[in-house]
Amino acid sequence: MTTFREKLRTAQHAHCSWLCVGLDPVMPRLPEVVRSTEDPLLAFGRTIVENTADVVSAYKPNLAFWLAEGAAGVRALQQLIEEIPDDLPVILDAKFNDVGHTAQAYARAAFEKLGADAATLNPYLGLDTLRPFLDAAEHGVFLLARTSNPSAPQLQDLEVEGRPLYQHVAQLAARWNVELPGTCGLVVGATYPEELGMVREMAPRLPFLIPGIGAQGGDLLRAVEHGPTADGVGPVINSSRGIIYASAGPDFGNAARKAALRLRDQINQQREESA
Amino acid sequence: MTTFREKLRTAQHAHCSWLCVGLDPVMPRLPEVVRSTEDPLLAFGRTIVENTADVVSAYKPNLAFWLAEGAAGVRALQQLIEEIPDDLPVILDAKFNDVGHTAQAYARAAFEKLGADAATLNPYLGLDTLRPFLDAAEHGVFLLARTSNPSAPQLQDLEVEGRPLYQHVAQLAARWNVELPGTCGLVVGATYPEELGMVREMAPRLPFLIPGIGAQGGDLLRAVEHGPTADGVGPVINSSRGIIYASAGPDFGNAARKAALRLRDQINQQREESA
Repeated sequence: MTTFREKLRTAQHAHCSWLCVGLDPVMPRLPEVVRSTEDPLLAFGRTIVENTADVVSAYKPNLAFWLAEGAAGVRALQQLIEEIPDDLPVILDAKFNDVGHTAQAYARAAFEKLGADAATLNPYLGLDTLRPFLDAAEHGVFLLARTSNPSAPQLQDLEVEGRPLYQHVAQLAARWNVELPGTCGLVVGATYPEELGMVREMAPRLPFLIPGIGAQGGDLLRAVEHGPTADGVGPVINSSRGIIYASAGPDFGNAARKAALRLRDQINQQREESA
Repeated sequence: MTTFREKLRTAQHAHCSWLCVGLDPVMPRLPEVVRSTEDPLLAFGRTIVENTADVVSAYKPNLAFWLAEGAAGVRALQQLIEEIPDDLPVILDAKFNDVGHTAQAYARAAFEKLGADAATLNPYLGLDTLRPFLDAAEHGVFLLARTSNPSAPQLQDLEVEGRPLYQHVAQLAARWNVELPGTCGLVVGATYPEELGMVREMAPRLPFLIPGIGAQGGDLLRAVEHGPTADGVGPVINSSRGIIYASAGPDFGNAARKAALRLRDQINQQREESA
Protein backbone atom coordinates (compact mmCIF):
# COMPACT_ATOMS: atom_id res chain seq x y z
CA MET A 1 0.00 0.00 0.00
CA THR A 2 1.27 3.45 -0.93
CA THR A 3 1.01 6.25 1.59
CA PHE A 4 -0.45 9.55 0.43
CA ARG A 5 2.96 11.11 0.96
CA GLU A 6 4.58 8.60 -1.42
CA LYS A 7 1.83 8.90 -4.01
CA LEU A 8 2.32 12.65 -4.08
CA ARG A 9 6.11 12.41 -4.25
CA THR A 10 5.99 9.83 -7.05
CA ALA A 11 3.64 11.99 -9.14
CA GLN A 12 5.87 15.03 -8.59
CA HIS A 13 8.90 13.11 -9.87
CA ALA A 14 7.09 11.45 -12.76
CA HIS A 15 5.82 14.76 -14.19
CA CYS A 16 8.66 16.92 -12.92
CA SER A 17 5.96 19.14 -11.49
CA TRP A 18 4.82 20.75 -8.27
CA LEU A 19 1.75 22.13 -9.99
CA CYS A 20 -1.77 21.34 -8.82
CA VAL A 21 -4.75 22.49 -10.85
CA GLY A 22 -7.86 23.56 -8.96
CA LEU A 23 -11.00 22.12 -10.55
CA ASP A 24 -13.44 24.88 -9.62
CA PRO A 25 -16.09 25.32 -12.33
CA VAL A 26 -18.53 28.23 -11.96
CA MET A 27 -21.47 27.81 -14.33
CA PRO A 28 -21.63 31.38 -15.74
CA ARG A 29 -17.89 31.33 -16.49
CA LEU A 30 -17.91 28.08 -18.46
CA PRO A 31 -17.20 28.31 -22.19
CA GLU A 32 -20.31 28.31 -24.37
CA VAL A 33 -19.19 25.07 -26.05
CA VAL A 34 -19.44 23.32 -22.68
CA ARG A 35 -22.54 25.02 -21.34
CA SER A 36 -24.64 23.55 -24.13
CA THR A 37 -23.73 19.96 -23.18
CA GLU A 38 -25.86 17.72 -20.98
CA ASP A 39 -23.43 17.82 -18.05
CA PRO A 40 -21.47 21.09 -18.32
CA LEU A 41 -19.45 20.68 -15.11
CA LEU A 42 -18.28 17.20 -16.06
CA ALA A 43 -17.57 18.14 -19.68
CA PHE A 44 -15.53 21.12 -18.52
CA GLY A 45 -13.59 19.21 -15.86
CA ARG A 46 -12.91 16.31 -18.20
CA THR A 47 -11.42 18.57 -20.87
CA ILE A 48 -9.23 20.32 -18.30
CA VAL A 49 -7.97 16.97 -16.97
CA GLU A 50 -7.36 15.50 -20.45
CA ASN A 51 -5.26 18.53 -21.34
CA THR A 52 -3.24 18.82 -18.13
CA ALA A 53 -2.84 15.33 -16.63
CA ASP A 54 0.78 14.95 -17.75
CA VAL A 55 1.72 18.43 -16.53
CA VAL A 56 0.45 18.34 -12.94
CA SER A 57 1.23 16.33 -9.81
CA ALA A 58 -2.23 16.65 -8.25
CA TYR A 59 -5.76 17.95 -8.76
CA LYS A 60 -7.74 19.89 -6.20
CA PRO A 61 -11.48 20.13 -6.81
CA ASN A 62 -13.16 22.51 -4.35
CA LEU A 63 -16.44 20.96 -3.20
CA ALA A 64 -18.18 24.37 -3.13
CA PHE A 65 -18.33 24.73 -6.90
CA TRP A 66 -19.80 21.26 -7.42
CA LEU A 67 -22.25 21.48 -4.53
CA ALA A 68 -23.43 24.83 -5.92
CA GLU A 69 -25.10 22.76 -8.66
CA GLY A 70 -26.75 20.45 -6.13
CA ALA A 71 -26.90 16.69 -6.54
CA ALA A 72 -26.07 16.94 -10.26
CA GLY A 73 -22.84 18.73 -9.41
CA VAL A 74 -21.85 16.14 -6.83
CA ARG A 75 -22.55 13.36 -9.33
CA ALA A 76 -20.35 15.12 -11.91
CA LEU A 77 -17.52 15.46 -9.37
CA GLN A 78 -17.77 11.79 -8.44
CA GLN A 79 -17.51 10.84 -12.11
CA LEU A 80 -14.66 13.25 -12.83
CA ILE A 81 -12.53 11.95 -9.96
CA GLU A 82 -13.08 8.43 -11.26
CA GLU A 83 -11.66 9.52 -14.62
CA ILE A 84 -8.54 11.17 -13.19
CA PRO A 85 -5.52 8.88 -13.79
CA ASP A 86 -4.86 6.68 -10.74
CA ASP A 87 -1.30 7.88 -10.26
CA LEU A 88 -2.40 11.48 -9.66
CA PRO A 89 -3.52 12.29 -6.12
CA VAL A 90 -6.85 14.06 -5.80
CA ILE A 91 -7.20 16.52 -2.92
CA LEU A 92 -10.82 17.31 -2.09
CA ASP A 93 -10.82 20.92 -0.90
CA ALA A 94 -13.79 21.06 1.45
CA LYS A 95 -12.26 22.44 4.65
CA PHE A 96 -14.25 19.83 6.60
CA ASN A 97 -14.62 20.28 10.33
CA ASP A 98 -16.98 18.52 12.69
CA VAL A 99 -17.31 16.41 15.83
CA GLY A 100 -16.07 12.80 15.79
CA HIS A 101 -18.97 10.74 14.45
CA THR A 102 -19.83 13.45 11.92
CA ALA A 103 -16.23 13.78 10.75
CA GLN A 104 -16.39 10.05 10.12
CA ALA A 105 -19.30 10.62 7.73
CA TYR A 106 -17.28 13.30 5.91
CA ALA A 107 -14.29 10.96 5.63
CA ARG A 108 -16.59 8.38 4.08
CA ALA A 109 -17.90 11.02 1.65
CA ALA A 110 -14.40 12.14 0.66
CA PHE A 111 -12.61 8.81 0.36
CA GLU A 112 -15.26 6.17 -0.31
CA LYS A 113 -17.99 8.02 -2.19
CA LEU A 114 -16.06 10.73 -4.04
CA GLY A 115 -12.82 8.77 -4.33
CA ALA A 116 -10.36 11.46 -3.21
CA ASP A 117 -6.94 10.64 -1.75
CA ALA A 118 -6.79 13.58 0.62
CA ALA A 119 -8.96 16.41 1.93
CA THR A 120 -8.47 19.84 3.39
CA LEU A 121 -9.60 20.25 7.01
CA ASN A 122 -10.19 23.20 9.30
CA PRO A 123 -8.49 22.98 12.73
CA TYR A 124 -11.04 24.89 14.87
CA LEU A 125 -12.56 21.72 16.42
CA GLY A 126 -9.23 20.08 17.19
CA LEU A 127 -8.11 16.50 16.72
CA ASP A 128 -11.65 15.02 16.70
CA THR A 129 -12.07 16.22 13.12
CA LEU A 130 -8.77 14.77 11.89
CA ARG A 131 -8.84 11.31 13.39
CA PRO A 132 -11.26 9.58 10.95
CA PHE A 133 -9.43 11.13 7.98
CA LEU A 134 -6.02 9.91 9.11
CA ASP A 135 -6.78 6.40 10.31
CA ALA A 136 -5.33 4.89 7.12
CA ALA A 137 -1.84 5.51 5.74
CA GLU A 138 -3.05 5.97 2.16
CA HIS A 139 -5.09 9.00 3.17
CA GLY A 140 -3.91 12.53 3.69
CA VAL A 141 -5.18 15.83 4.98
CA PHE A 142 -4.04 19.38 4.59
CA LEU A 143 -4.94 21.32 7.70
CA LEU A 144 -5.60 25.05 7.30
CA ALA A 145 -2.82 27.00 8.99
CA ARG A 146 -2.65 30.28 7.08
CA THR A 147 -5.29 30.77 4.40
CA SER A 148 -4.83 33.01 1.38
CA ASN A 149 -7.78 35.41 1.86
CA PRO A 150 -7.73 39.04 3.03
CA SER A 151 -9.60 38.44 6.33
CA ALA A 152 -7.36 35.49 7.29
CA PRO A 153 -5.54 37.52 9.98
CA GLN A 154 -8.75 38.21 11.96
CA LEU A 155 -8.39 34.90 13.79
CA GLN A 156 -5.21 33.34 12.44
CA ASP A 157 -2.93 36.14 13.61
CA LEU A 158 -4.36 36.49 17.12
CA GLU A 159 -1.46 36.24 19.53
CA VAL A 160 -1.37 33.14 21.69
CA GLU A 161 1.53 32.84 24.12
CA GLY A 162 3.59 35.27 22.10
CA ARG A 163 2.96 33.63 18.75
CA PRO A 164 0.18 33.88 16.16
CA LEU A 165 -2.54 31.23 16.27
CA TYR A 166 -1.59 29.74 12.86
CA GLN A 167 1.78 28.74 14.27
CA HIS A 168 0.07 26.83 17.07
CA VAL A 169 -1.90 25.00 14.41
CA ALA A 170 1.34 24.14 12.61
CA GLN A 171 2.77 22.70 15.81
CA LEU A 172 -0.35 20.69 16.59
CA ALA A 173 -0.29 19.32 13.03
CA ALA A 174 3.36 18.25 13.39
CA ARG A 175 2.40 16.31 16.51
CA TRP A 176 -0.72 14.74 14.95
CA ASN A 177 1.29 13.70 11.89
CA VAL A 178 3.44 11.52 14.14
CA GLU A 179 0.50 10.13 16.16
CA LEU A 180 -1.76 9.10 13.28
CA PRO A 181 -1.19 6.68 10.35
CA GLY A 182 -2.19 9.08 7.54
CA THR A 183 -0.21 12.03 6.16
CA CYS A 184 -0.92 15.38 7.79
CA GLY A 185 0.06 18.41 5.73
CA LEU A 186 -0.65 22.12 6.02
CA VAL A 187 -2.34 24.80 3.94
CA VAL A 188 -0.29 28.00 3.81
CA GLY A 189 -1.32 30.68 1.33
CA ALA A 190 1.28 32.07 -1.06
CA THR A 191 -0.30 35.47 -0.46
CA TYR A 192 1.41 35.51 2.95
CA PRO A 193 5.04 34.74 2.00
CA GLU A 194 6.59 35.55 5.39
CA GLU A 195 4.24 33.11 7.08
CA LEU A 196 5.31 30.36 4.67
CA GLY A 197 8.84 30.50 6.04
CA MET A 198 7.69 30.58 9.65
CA VAL A 199 5.46 27.55 9.22
CA ARG A 200 8.17 25.60 7.41
CA GLU A 201 10.49 26.15 10.34
CA MET A 202 7.92 24.81 12.80
CA ALA A 203 6.89 21.81 10.70
CA PRO A 204 9.89 20.70 8.60
CA ARG A 205 8.39 17.34 7.56
CA LEU A 206 4.82 18.34 6.71
CA PRO A 207 3.79 18.60 3.05
CA PHE A 208 2.42 22.03 2.10
CA LEU A 209 -0.60 22.86 0.01
CA ILE A 210 -0.01 26.39 -1.24
CA PRO A 211 -3.01 28.20 -2.72
CA GLY A 212 -3.07 31.79 -3.88
CA ILE A 213 -0.71 31.54 -6.88
CA GLY A 214 -2.20 33.10 -10.01
CA ALA A 215 -5.45 35.07 -9.68
CA GLN A 216 -4.80 35.79 -6.00
CA GLY A 217 -1.30 37.13 -6.72
CA GLY A 218 0.80 34.99 -4.38
CA ASP A 219 4.60 34.92 -4.15
CA LEU A 220 6.02 32.04 -6.21
CA LEU A 221 9.62 32.56 -5.10
CA ARG A 222 8.77 31.97 -1.44
CA ALA A 223 6.46 29.08 -2.30
CA VAL A 224 9.37 27.32 -4.00
CA GLU A 225 11.89 28.29 -1.34
CA HIS A 226 9.89 27.17 1.70
CA GLY A 227 7.64 24.65 -0.03
CA PRO A 228 9.54 21.34 0.11
CA THR A 229 9.74 19.20 3.23
CA ALA A 230 13.12 18.40 4.79
CA ASP A 231 13.03 15.00 3.05
CA GLY A 232 12.08 16.31 -0.35
CA VAL A 233 8.32 16.13 -0.76
CA GLY A 234 7.53 19.14 -2.90
CA PRO A 235 4.70 21.54 -2.20
CA VAL A 236 1.31 21.25 -3.86
CA ILE A 237 1.25 24.63 -5.59
CA ASN A 238 -2.31 25.29 -6.63
CA SER A 239 -3.69 27.52 -9.35
CA SER A 240 -7.32 27.42 -10.37
CA ARG A 241 -8.75 30.37 -12.28
CA GLY A 242 -5.48 31.32 -13.99
CA ILE A 243 -5.47 27.92 -15.68
CA ILE A 244 -9.03 26.69 -16.08
CA TYR A 245 -10.29 30.03 -17.41
CA ALA A 246 -7.26 30.78 -19.58
CA SER A 247 -9.70 30.99 -22.50
CA ALA A 248 -13.49 31.27 -22.65
CA GLY A 249 -13.54 30.04 -26.24
CA PRO A 250 -13.79 26.53 -27.67
CA ASP A 251 -9.98 26.26 -27.32
CA PHE A 252 -10.19 26.40 -23.50
CA GLY A 253 -8.64 22.95 -23.08
CA ASN A 254 -5.56 23.83 -25.06
CA ALA A 255 -5.33 27.24 -23.42
CA ALA A 256 -5.48 25.56 -20.00
CA ARG A 257 -2.67 23.23 -21.07
CA LYS A 258 -0.50 26.13 -22.18
CA ALA A 259 -1.17 28.03 -18.94
CA ALA A 260 -0.39 24.91 -16.88
CA LEU A 261 2.84 24.28 -18.79
CA ARG A 262 3.84 27.91 -18.34
CA LEU A 263 3.28 27.83 -14.58
CA ARG A 264 4.92 24.42 -14.16
CA ASP A 265 7.98 25.69 -16.03
CA GLN A 266 8.04 28.92 -13.99
CA ILE A 267 8.03 26.83 -10.84
CA ASN A 268 10.81 24.60 -12.16
CA GLN A 269 12.90 27.58 -13.22
CA GLN A 270 12.46 29.07 -9.77
CA ARG A 271 13.53 25.73 -8.29
CA GLU A 272 16.71 25.77 -10.35
CA GLU A 273 17.49 29.35 -9.39
CA SER A 274 16.86 28.64 -5.71
CA ALA A 275 18.84 25.39 -5.73
CA MET B 1 -39.83 39.87 3.67
CA THR B 2 -39.25 38.04 6.96
CA THR B 3 -35.80 38.05 8.51
CA PHE B 4 -34.35 34.74 9.64
CA ARG B 5 -34.53 36.03 13.18
CA GLU B 6 -38.29 36.65 12.87
CA LYS B 7 -38.96 33.35 11.13
CA LEU B 8 -37.26 31.52 13.98
CA ARG B 9 -39.07 33.52 16.66
CA THR B 10 -42.46 32.98 14.99
CA ALA B 11 -41.93 29.22 14.75
CA GLN B 12 -40.86 29.10 18.41
CA HIS B 13 -44.06 30.87 19.49
CA ALA B 14 -46.35 28.91 17.16
CA HIS B 15 -45.17 25.53 18.46
CA CYS B 16 -44.28 26.68 21.96
CA SER B 17 -40.95 25.00 21.33
CA TRP B 18 -37.22 25.67 21.40
CA LEU B 19 -36.53 22.20 20.08
CA CYS B 20 -34.63 21.55 16.87
CA VAL B 21 -34.33 18.04 15.50
CA GLY B 22 -31.07 17.11 13.79
CA LEU B 23 -31.72 15.20 10.56
CA ASP B 24 -28.59 13.04 10.52
CA PRO B 25 -29.30 9.63 8.97
CA VAL B 26 -26.51 7.03 9.03
CA MET B 27 -27.32 4.16 6.68
CA PRO B 28 -26.44 1.21 8.99
CA ARG B 29 -28.55 2.70 11.80
CA LEU B 30 -31.71 3.14 9.71
CA PRO B 31 -34.69 0.92 10.58
CA GLU B 32 -35.06 -2.14 8.36
CA VAL B 33 -38.45 -0.91 7.14
CA VAL B 34 -36.73 2.13 5.63
CA ARG B 35 -33.56 0.48 4.38
CA SER B 36 -35.57 -1.65 1.96
CA THR B 37 -37.11 1.39 0.23
CA GLU B 38 -35.74 2.94 -2.95
CA ASP B 39 -34.49 6.09 -1.22
CA PRO B 40 -33.79 5.15 2.42
CA LEU B 41 -32.43 8.55 3.50
CA LEU B 42 -35.43 10.43 2.13
CA ALA B 43 -37.94 7.90 3.46
CA PHE B 44 -36.36 8.11 6.90
CA GLY B 45 -36.15 11.91 6.97
CA ARG B 46 -39.69 12.29 5.67
CA THR B 47 -41.14 10.08 8.42
CA ILE B 48 -39.20 11.97 11.08
CA VAL B 49 -40.46 15.30 9.74
CA GLU B 50 -44.07 14.14 9.40
CA ASN B 51 -44.04 13.00 13.02
CA THR B 52 -42.32 16.01 14.57
CA ALA B 53 -43.15 19.10 12.48
CA ASP B 54 -45.70 20.45 15.00
CA VAL B 55 -43.34 19.86 17.94
CA VAL B 56 -40.17 21.62 16.76
CA SER B 57 -39.20 25.17 15.85
CA ALA B 58 -36.45 24.23 13.40
CA TYR B 59 -34.70 21.35 11.65
CA LYS B 60 -30.95 20.96 11.33
CA PRO B 61 -29.75 18.49 8.71
CA ASN B 62 -25.98 17.94 8.91
CA LEU B 63 -24.57 17.84 5.37
CA ALA B 64 -22.03 15.14 6.32
CA PHE B 65 -24.61 12.38 6.63
CA TRP B 66 -26.19 13.15 3.26
CA LEU B 67 -22.91 13.66 1.42
CA ALA B 68 -21.73 10.31 2.83
CA GLU B 69 -24.17 8.75 0.34
CA GLY B 70 -22.79 10.82 -2.54
CA ALA B 71 -25.01 12.50 -5.13
CA ALA B 72 -28.01 10.34 -4.15
CA GLY B 73 -27.77 11.61 -0.59
CA VAL B 74 -27.59 15.23 -1.69
CA ARG B 75 -30.63 14.73 -3.93
CA ALA B 76 -32.53 13.22 -0.99
CA LEU B 77 -31.62 16.17 1.22
CA GLN B 78 -32.73 18.66 -1.45
CA GLN B 79 -36.09 16.87 -1.68
CA LEU B 80 -36.54 16.58 2.08
CA ILE B 81 -35.93 20.30 2.67
CA GLU B 82 -38.52 21.05 -0.01
CA GLU B 83 -41.04 18.98 1.94
CA ILE B 84 -40.40 20.65 5.30
CA PRO B 85 -43.28 23.07 6.09
CA ASP B 86 -42.41 26.62 4.99
CA ASP B 87 -42.89 28.13 8.43
CA LEU B 88 -40.11 26.02 9.94
CA PRO B 89 -36.57 27.33 9.46
CA VAL B 90 -34.03 24.85 8.12
CA ILE B 91 -30.47 25.25 9.34
CA LEU B 92 -27.94 23.47 7.12
CA ASP B 93 -25.19 22.30 9.45
CA ALA B 94 -22.13 22.24 7.21
CA LYS B 95 -19.64 24.40 9.10
CA PHE B 96 -18.72 26.05 5.81
CA ASN B 97 -15.54 28.11 5.62
CA ASP B 98 -13.71 29.39 2.58
CA VAL B 99 -12.34 32.43 0.79
CA GLY B 100 -14.75 35.00 -0.66
CA HIS B 101 -15.65 33.73 -4.13
CA THR B 102 -15.77 30.14 -2.87
CA ALA B 103 -17.94 31.05 0.12
CA GLN B 104 -20.28 32.57 -2.45
CA ALA B 105 -20.60 29.16 -4.13
CA TYR B 106 -21.38 27.57 -0.77
CA ALA B 107 -24.05 30.20 -0.06
CA ARG B 108 -25.61 29.37 -3.41
CA ALA B 109 -25.51 25.66 -2.52
CA ALA B 110 -27.11 26.22 0.88
CA PHE B 111 -29.81 28.77 0.04
CA GLU B 112 -30.58 28.36 -3.66
CA LYS B 113 -29.91 24.70 -4.38
CA LEU B 114 -30.68 23.01 -1.06
CA GLY B 115 -33.25 25.57 0.08
CA ALA B 116 -32.02 26.14 3.64
CA ASP B 117 -32.75 29.34 5.60
CA ALA B 118 -29.50 29.37 7.54
CA ALA B 119 -26.17 27.58 7.71
CA THR B 120 -23.49 26.94 10.28
CA LEU B 121 -20.11 28.53 9.53
CA ASN B 122 -16.61 28.13 10.93
CA PRO B 123 -14.85 31.40 11.89
CA TYR B 124 -11.21 30.45 11.13
CA LEU B 125 -11.08 32.41 7.82
CA GLY B 126 -12.72 35.54 9.22
CA LEU B 127 -15.39 37.75 7.70
CA ASP B 128 -14.72 36.70 4.07
CA THR B 129 -16.62 33.46 4.72
CA LEU B 130 -19.64 35.15 6.29
CA ARG B 131 -20.29 37.98 3.87
CA PRO B 132 -22.03 36.03 1.06
CA PHE B 133 -24.20 34.19 3.59
CA LEU B 134 -25.38 37.39 5.27
CA ASP B 135 -26.01 39.68 2.32
CA ALA B 136 -29.79 39.15 2.57
CA ALA B 137 -31.91 39.71 5.69
CA GLU B 138 -33.86 36.47 5.25
CA HIS B 139 -30.69 34.44 5.66
CA GLY B 140 -28.94 33.49 8.85
CA VAL B 141 -25.74 31.88 10.00
CA PHE B 142 -24.65 30.30 13.25
CA LEU B 143 -20.94 30.83 13.70
CA LEU B 144 -19.04 28.21 15.69
CA ALA B 145 -17.90 29.71 18.96
CA ARG B 146 -17.69 26.77 21.36
CA THR B 147 -18.36 23.37 19.83
CA SER B 148 -19.65 20.38 21.83
CA ASN B 149 -16.82 17.87 21.16
CA PRO B 150 -14.08 16.69 23.55
CA SER B 151 -11.17 18.23 21.59
CA ALA B 152 -12.89 21.62 21.26
CA PRO B 153 -10.56 23.24 23.85
CA GLN B 154 -7.40 22.52 21.79
CA LEU B 155 -7.93 25.70 19.78
CA GLN B 156 -11.05 27.31 21.20
CA ASP B 157 -9.64 27.75 24.71
CA LEU B 158 -6.25 29.14 23.69
CA GLU B 159 -5.76 32.37 25.58
CA VAL B 160 -5.79 35.53 23.49
CA GLU B 161 -5.31 38.81 25.34
CA GLY B 162 -6.40 37.23 28.60
CA ARG B 163 -9.51 35.56 27.20
CA PRO B 164 -10.18 32.28 25.42
CA LEU B 165 -10.37 32.35 21.63
CA TYR B 166 -14.07 31.39 21.51
CA GLN B 167 -14.93 34.65 23.31
CA HIS B 168 -13.11 36.63 20.62
CA VAL B 169 -15.26 34.85 18.08
CA ALA B 170 -18.39 35.81 20.02
CA GLN B 171 -17.30 39.46 20.01
CA LEU B 172 -16.50 39.42 16.30
CA ALA B 173 -19.90 37.85 15.60
CA ALA B 174 -21.68 40.57 17.61
CA ARG B 175 -19.94 43.18 15.44
CA TRP B 176 -20.65 41.38 12.16
CA ASN B 177 -24.32 40.95 13.12
CA VAL B 178 -24.65 44.75 13.17
CA GLU B 179 -22.65 45.30 9.97
CA LEU B 180 -24.43 42.79 7.72
CA PRO B 181 -28.12 42.46 6.69
CA GLY B 182 -28.57 38.78 7.67
CA THR B 183 -28.86 37.31 11.16
CA CYS B 184 -25.60 36.21 12.76
CA GLY B 185 -25.99 33.71 15.60
CA LEU B 186 -23.55 31.53 17.51
CA VAL B 187 -23.03 27.82 18.12
CA VAL B 188 -22.31 27.07 21.77
CA GLY B 189 -22.36 23.43 22.90
CA ALA B 190 -24.50 22.46 25.89
CA THR B 191 -21.62 20.19 26.92
CA TYR B 192 -19.77 23.32 28.05
CA PRO B 193 -22.36 24.99 30.33
CA GLU B 194 -20.01 27.61 31.85
CA GLU B 195 -19.06 28.82 28.39
CA LEU B 196 -22.72 29.27 27.48
CA GLY B 197 -23.09 31.94 30.16
CA MET B 198 -19.86 33.68 29.17
CA VAL B 199 -20.84 33.87 25.52
CA ARG B 200 -24.33 35.12 26.34
CA GLU B 201 -22.79 37.98 28.33
CA MET B 202 -20.60 38.98 25.39
CA ALA B 203 -23.31 38.71 22.75
CA PRO B 204 -26.69 39.48 24.35
CA ARG B 205 -28.57 39.84 21.06
CA LEU B 206 -27.24 36.87 19.07
CA PRO B 207 -29.43 33.77 18.67
CA PHE B 208 -27.80 30.57 19.95
CA LEU B 209 -27.69 27.18 18.34
CA ILE B 210 -27.03 24.74 21.17
CA PRO B 211 -25.98 21.21 20.19
CA GLY B 212 -24.96 18.48 22.60
CA ILE B 213 -28.30 17.88 24.33
CA GLY B 214 -29.26 14.19 24.42
CA ALA B 215 -26.64 11.63 23.27
CA GLN B 216 -23.77 14.01 24.05
CA GLY B 217 -25.06 14.63 27.61
CA GLY B 218 -25.28 18.45 27.62
CA ASP B 219 -26.70 20.61 30.41
CA LEU B 220 -30.31 21.55 29.66
CA LEU B 221 -30.69 23.88 32.65
CA ARG B 222 -27.91 26.18 31.43
CA ALA B 223 -29.11 25.96 27.84
CA VAL B 224 -32.48 27.31 28.95
CA GLU B 225 -31.02 29.85 31.34
CA HIS B 226 -28.51 31.42 28.95
CA GLY B 227 -30.16 30.47 25.68
CA PRO B 228 -32.57 33.34 24.90
CA THR B 229 -31.42 36.66 23.50
CA ALA B 230 -32.06 39.88 25.42
CA ASP B 231 -35.08 40.52 23.20
CA GLY B 232 -36.57 37.06 23.52
CA VAL B 233 -35.42 34.96 20.58
CA GLY B 234 -35.15 31.50 22.10
CA PRO B 235 -32.21 29.18 21.52
CA VAL B 236 -32.21 26.48 18.88
CA ILE B 237 -31.73 23.47 21.16
CA ASN B 238 -30.73 20.58 18.99
CA SER B 239 -31.02 16.86 19.56
CA SER B 240 -30.35 14.34 16.81
CA ARG B 241 -29.66 10.73 17.79
CA GLY B 242 -31.79 10.80 20.96
CA ILE B 243 -34.83 11.53 18.80
CA ILE B 244 -34.31 10.07 15.34
CA TYR B 245 -33.05 6.73 16.66
CA ALA B 246 -35.54 6.47 19.55
CA SER B 247 -36.61 3.19 18.00
CA ALA B 248 -35.03 0.95 15.36
CA GLY B 249 -38.34 -0.78 14.67
CA PRO B 250 -41.14 0.04 12.22
CA ASP B 251 -42.59 2.40 14.88
CA PHE B 252 -39.55 4.73 14.63
CA GLY B 253 -41.66 7.70 13.50
CA ASN B 254 -43.97 7.51 16.47
CA ALA B 255 -41.05 6.86 18.82
CA ALA B 256 -39.30 9.96 17.44
CA ARG B 257 -42.47 11.97 18.05
CA LYS B 258 -42.67 10.81 21.65
CA ALA B 259 -38.98 11.56 22.25
CA ALA B 260 -39.37 15.02 20.66
CA LEU B 261 -42.47 15.79 22.76
CA ARG B 262 -40.66 14.64 25.89
CA LEU B 263 -37.66 16.88 25.23
CA ARG B 264 -39.79 19.85 24.19
CA ASP B 265 -41.78 19.52 27.41
CA GLN B 266 -38.61 19.15 29.49
CA ILE B 267 -37.32 22.35 27.94
CA ASN B 268 -40.61 24.13 28.61
CA GLN B 269 -40.72 22.91 32.19
CA GLN B 270 -37.18 24.14 32.69
CA ARG B 271 -38.25 27.49 31.23
CA GLU B 272 -41.09 27.77 33.73
CA GLU B 273 -38.82 26.88 36.63
CA SER B 274 -36.17 29.36 35.51
CA ALA B 275 -38.73 32.13 34.88
